[in-house]
Amino acid sequence: MKLLEDRIRKDGTVKEGNILKVDSFLNHQMDIELFNAMGEEFKRLFADRPINKILTIEASGIGIAAITAQHFNVPVVFAKKAQSVNLDGTMYVTKVESFTHKRTYDVIVSTKFLSSDDHVLIIDDFLANGCAVDGLIDLIRSAGATVEGVGIVIEKGFQTGGQLIRDKGIRVESLAIIESMDAKTGEIVFREQ
Amino acid sequence: MKLLEDRIRKDGTVKEGNILKVDSFLNHQMDIELFNAMGEEFKRLFADRPINKILTIEASGIGIAAITAQHFNVPVVFAKKAQSVNLDGTMYVTKVESFTHKRTYDVIVSTKFLSSDDHVLIIDDFLANGCAVDGLIDLIRSAGATVEGVGIVIEKGFQTGGQLIRDKGIRVESLAIIESMDAKTGEIVFREQ
Repeated sequence: MKLLEDRIRKDGTVKEGNILKVDSFLNHQMDIELFNAMGEEFKRLFADRPINKILTIEASGIGIAAITAQHFNVPVVFAKKAQSVNLDGTMYVTKVESFTHKRTYDVIVSTKFLSSDDHVLIIDDFLANGCAVDGLIDLIRSAGATVEGVGIVIEKGFQTGGQLIRDKGIRVESLAIIESMDAKTGEIVFREQ
Repeated sequence: MKLLEDRIRKDGTVKEGNILKVDSFLNHQMDIELFNAMGEEFKRLFADRPINKILTIEASGIGIAAITAQHFNVPVVFAKKAQSVNLDGTMYVTKVESFTHKRTYDVIVSTKFLSSDDHVLIIDDFLANGCAVDGLIDLIRSAGATVEGVGIVIEKGFQTGGQLIRDKGIRVESLAIIESMDAKTGEIVFREQ
């Protein structure tokens, strides 16, 4: 998505350790007009799928999921992170390792909000090693629901997450895929889509 | 706001300990159509204020803030919770006590995203003892920015937060104010507005 790639080039900053800072428009300050353009694009990409629910994970997926949901006319469920939870039978639970925070979270969704009737689009801001998306897929499958696809804002194409999820036969659409980036020069190369 | 009060009566559940569960439409599953009606109402209520930014706090404020921002044509900044942070001079930091989680968080906003030019509307899902909103006010004032008002989805009118913030001369608009609720009967009484 050219609008997004241009914005990443303009306002993104490459840091050592494969970190791309896009906090001025994506995951700390949020440019809602850009989010709307992205939501429209997700709708175009997944127009053929019978999606009735969007699933994301707190916190930085929530804004883009909420705006995107308007283009699908569906509710959003956001999975919650907890350091530890009681498995009381009313929640689906999975474990997610955080690349950013170097720790493992329990991630939960109430059983009330995912069922075998659901056709779910996963939305998140970043896809790198794929742990968060993998956890969301696990929650959806625990409920017997269908994963209709995964919509990502920025995929780090040089990390393995995107390939691992596509290899499971799940459709992943990333609005921008970074082929490589260089903290020294600040250069960012996007994959042709 | 009648639409919201009706929805709370229909889908909300009162639990012991002054807990109101509204996770089927507000803070776990999110009814985006309802959010849009609430965003429109916040715009009507604050139409006379020169708001150029919305500030909320992760996680459950983000969805309503993002949808509301469309009605103001402004960006959203969400403050982040951290168990402890290094005060490295690039963030505004305040402490917030969580009623739900019984612990204290550092809450941070990058200095890049709040400045003395900003006229800020605070948006959050709940107002009870007012700690979260108080923390956001503190962050805005650290930046020398102006608090234009506070927009809340559900205020627990029987707790002190709303009064404390209004006593500071800050305008608080809550779409529903609960005067009392009873876990035994499930009855919820709203304040006339």
